[in-house]
Amino acid sequence: MLTLYGAPGACSVIPHIALEEAGADYAVHFVDYAGGETRTPGFRALSPLGRVPMLMTEDGPLTENPAILSYIAMRYPAAGLAPLGDALAFARVQSFNLFIASNIHVAFRQIAFPDGYADGEAAAAALRAKVPELADRYFAIIERGLADGRPFVLGDSYTLSDIYLFAYANYLRMGDRGDPACLPLIMAHRARVRARPAVDRALVSEGLADAWAD
Amino acid sequence: MLTLYGAPGACSVIPHIALEEAGADYAVHFVDYAGGETRTPGFRALSPLGRVPMLMTEDGPLTENPAILSYIAMRYPAAGLAPLGDALAFARVQSFNLFIASNIHVAFRQIAFPDGYADGEAAAAALRAKVPELADRYFAIIERGLADGRPFVLGDSYTLSDIYLFAYANYLRMGDRGDPACLPLIMAHRARVRARPAVDRALVSEGLADAWAD
Repeated sequence: MLTLYGAPGACSVIPHIALEEAGADYAVHFVDYAGGETRTPGFRALSPLGRVPMLMTEDGPLTENPAILSYIAMRYPAAGLAPLGDALAFARVQSFNLFIASNIHVAFRQIAFPDGYADGEAAAAALRAKVPELADRYFAIIERGLADGRPFVLGDSYTLSDIYLFAYANYLRMGDRGDPACLPLIMAHRARVRARPAVDRALVSEGLADAWAD
Repeated sequence: MLTLYGAPGACSVIPHIALEEAGADYAVHFVDYAGGETRTPGFRALSPLGRVPMLMTEDGPLTENPAILSYIAMRYPAAGLAPLGDALAFARVQSFNLFIASNIHVAFRQIAFPDGYADGEAAAAALRAKVPELADRYFAIIERGLADGRPFVLGDSYTLSDIYLFAYANYLRMGDRGDPACLPLIMAHRARVRARPAVDRALVSEGLADAWAD
């Protein structure tokens, strides 16, 4: 059985939703940040940077969100969470997820973890001040991708990339990181994904049902 | 036929080596940064952030380095660049590549592109000053992974992850971003990968044969 290590509302919600969509037999373990669980040698042996999500499989741990997601899609092919039979289409799902992981996630981390980039209060303030500009730049690219009327990120089929975007669209609504009002297609996409029963089940489990409601 | 858009010595060297290892029918186009090629609307339509690598396929462009690499491995399965038949092993290759892409690459970018994180000269200096500490932290995790004597990142087989590490081990040797002397296993791995004929061919093509020699 799989065990997902996460934290409520962290980006571990993305594999949480994917596991729920896949009908997987899994458990979720919410780490005890306050109690220092992610700083213990035991946890660092599984996730060297002390981060979630970490997926514990029967054959050991797996880290890095896009890799975890691809694994879930490949382990549960019947769920159709990625176009596994088409190498280029599959790569495009990954490419989209990586665009968020390597750009939007990296920018959003500047808010809570500025000391992962530079030391000092002045640098922290400068890092935080830059986030809305970066978010606007990155989300505008995604918004343009939805301009042809497609219901989902990669076209007509719901994939891992829709779950990825959904989570970050919710983070965007938190108010200190870009302007959702300029992104009507992404916000409509967010509502479309939010209406899925599997998404609702994962959000209820994480205590997010109200915070991430419409 | 595939066309890889890159720049000599940029991280596009990683898919360049992968294509060479795969025996692919491909061309390389080195972008004209000085002439503004990556800022043109035409290029931005293919790579929205104006970055390389970008792989032009028969069915359109593909961006994000780990996604490009997985595509090459899936398109040329006989080359054995990833364990395609084992979902978890394949995910671990991706996880390793993402660890570099989302952490080491992000840190190294602080040197040349500090304004991608924060504005102002003081912030730029703070961002650059932090890089050696970040590089030491991230590379130490990889060094520990090699401590069991395995010849390659994921074990006995050479994969995409070895190419990824090879490139960043060379960047590490540039001197302003961490201490290679503390990483003997990574440096021995670098020499092992450097000795491969396909690697040499790609480096010669990029004018790196001497700079990236032993």
